Amino acid sequence: MKKIRAAVVGYGNVGKFAVEAIEAAADFELVGIVRRAGTNNCPAEIACYEVVDDITKLKDVDVAILTAPTRSVEQYAKEILALGINTVDSFDIHSEIVALRRSLEKAAKSGQAVAVISAGWDPGSDSVVRMMFEAMAPKGITYTNFGPGMSMGHTVAVKAVDGVKAALSMTIPTGTGIHRRMVYIELEDGYDYNKVAQAIKTDPYFVNDETHVIAVESVDALKDMGHGVNMTRKGVSGKTQNQLFEFNMRINNPALTAQILVCAARASLRQMPGCYTMVEIPIIDFLEGEREDLIGRLV
Amino acid sequence: MKKIRAAVVGYGNVGKFAVEAIEAAADFELVGIVRRAGTNNCPAEIACYEVVDDITKLKDVDVAILTAPTRSVEQYAKEILALGINTVDSFDIHSEIVALRRSLEKAAKSGQAVAVISAGWDPGSDSVVRMMFEAMAPKGITYTNFGPGMSMGHTVAVKAVDGVKAALSMTIPTGTGIHRRMVYIELEDGYDYNKVAQAIKTDPYFVNDETHVIAVESVDALKDMGHGVNMTRKGVSGKTQNQLFEFNMRINNPALTAQILVCAARASLRQMPGCYTMVEIPIIDFLEGEREDLIGRLV
Repeated sequence: MKKIRAAVVGYGNVGKFAVEAIEAAADFELVGIVRRAGTNNCPAEIACYEVVDDITKLKDVDVAILTAPTRSVEQYAKEILALGINTVDSFDIHSEIVALRRSLEKAAKSGQAVAVISAGWDPGSDSVVRMMFEAMAPKGITYTNFGPGMSMGHTVAVKAVDGVKAALSMTIPTGTGIHRRMVYIELEDGYDYNKVAQAIKTDPYFVNDETHVIAVESVDALKDMGHGVNMTRKGVSGKTQNQLFEFNMRINNPALTAQILVCAARASLRQMPGCYTMVEIPIIDFLEGEREDLIGRLV
Repeated sequence: MKKIRAAVVGYGNVGKFAVEAIEAAADFELVGIVRRAGTNNCPAEIACYEVVDDITKLKDVDVAILTAPTRSVEQYAKEILALGINTVDSFDIHSEIVALRRSLEKAAKSGQAVAVISAGWDPGSDSVVRMMFEAMAPKGITYTNFGPGMSMGHTVAVKAVDGVKAALSMTIPTGTGIHRRMVYIELEDGYDYNKVAQAIKTDPYFVNDETHVIAVESVDALKDMGHGVNMTRKGVSGKTQNQLFEFNMRINNPALTAQILVCAARASLRQMPGCYTMVEIPIIDFLEGEREDLIGRLV
């Protein structure tokens, strides 16, 4: 059987795990890795692969797995879709997904290719669960509780505060979708802890949440890529009250994101040209294997 | 907007809740109810609807919600699909789903209609979760634990044992997909408890499970339509071990089945002619509303 020829674009945390997920998937082969620096300072573990600074230098790519930062997803995707190559990304700004979908829908159709967007865990697999819970009980309230785990966006916001040398912002769930922020910082010499802590707490990222700022010797010593979700819904099926649903996970964050991207890359090859979020693709399309075998084993 | 015109076929437990779920869904109208007895002994709560003994007596039905017993699904579905009317069912014999799908695929295509099969909670929504868990961690073990709740199949098997006047078989999860059977019976006069209990425990339905048989005054006094699921998966994303996933629900059983059937009826109108299990349909198709609104709100 012909294997799916995938390229990994970007080689940060998620990119590294994407290479592993492709290596672990029997129906994939890794054509190469695209990074801005090309082969400069190329990590040893990918020396066995073709490493290039532009995807056009790779041959016969079916699908590009975009692991570059969310803000650069749209541009990369447009360029690659124009080449007739499918793209998958884990774009994670919830309020901008509809706009990205419109933009990439055009690009994908004109390139006769498929874009699967926001294919991570939230947005992504959590979105599938949220929609399914709402189908099962159309009236009611869903709470998505995140953590404990590191928030990338909040950590970046803390790092931008004057006097912060290094930072880690942990998201702690306190239930009903409310989160506490535990912020660990290394102070720059000559800065006052109280003033820096105050600046963090009044930052737009933190001003609405319970926030604790803790000065530590080493932020690096605290870092762990584990994360979690607890999603609950109590709702009404038809006219029957008190239907209770819950979804939990405790995972290595970039490893799960990368695995979902690889499954989405597989699914992309089974769709008509256009742009899709995960909820718009049958779940069976994400899995390796023959349709009837999967139905017999898992339905 | 034109409403979806649905008929409910069968009026047992699930049928009653299906009528409620249709009444609660703003985009549906109930055309009528099909029951073998027609209007004979017609329950008061459906007197306001057209009640017939054959679906051909109802006008302009878009989709038939089959709530008759699993064993009669195939025949009903074939007859109704031949009329060009979509069908949805909650056929629940896991080992026969592939065969039913093949059979109704032919019937649906020849009737230019859509069949959605096994659209309950297991098979059904649990199947969606099972497949998604496997996409998120392709290597690993999933355990589906059922209950506490009444098992229809096991209860019927107990009722068939000589000396049993009334019965209730409860499924109790003991973890790792292993279940205890708690069997409550009313004894017929003149029968020996020990002999009847022994006959139940050696029945093929029970011989492989830990089974307790308890004689009670009234089985009816114990009956409750609540049920539950706990599904867990511990697996590997890419090459990263110990990824943990869990899904729980505590629900009114026929109410959830009926709600999922109604959502599947909606989804059926968005598919090309053919036969589908729930895992083959994008989850967004089960929900009421405009696509971009749903994506903006729930993805």
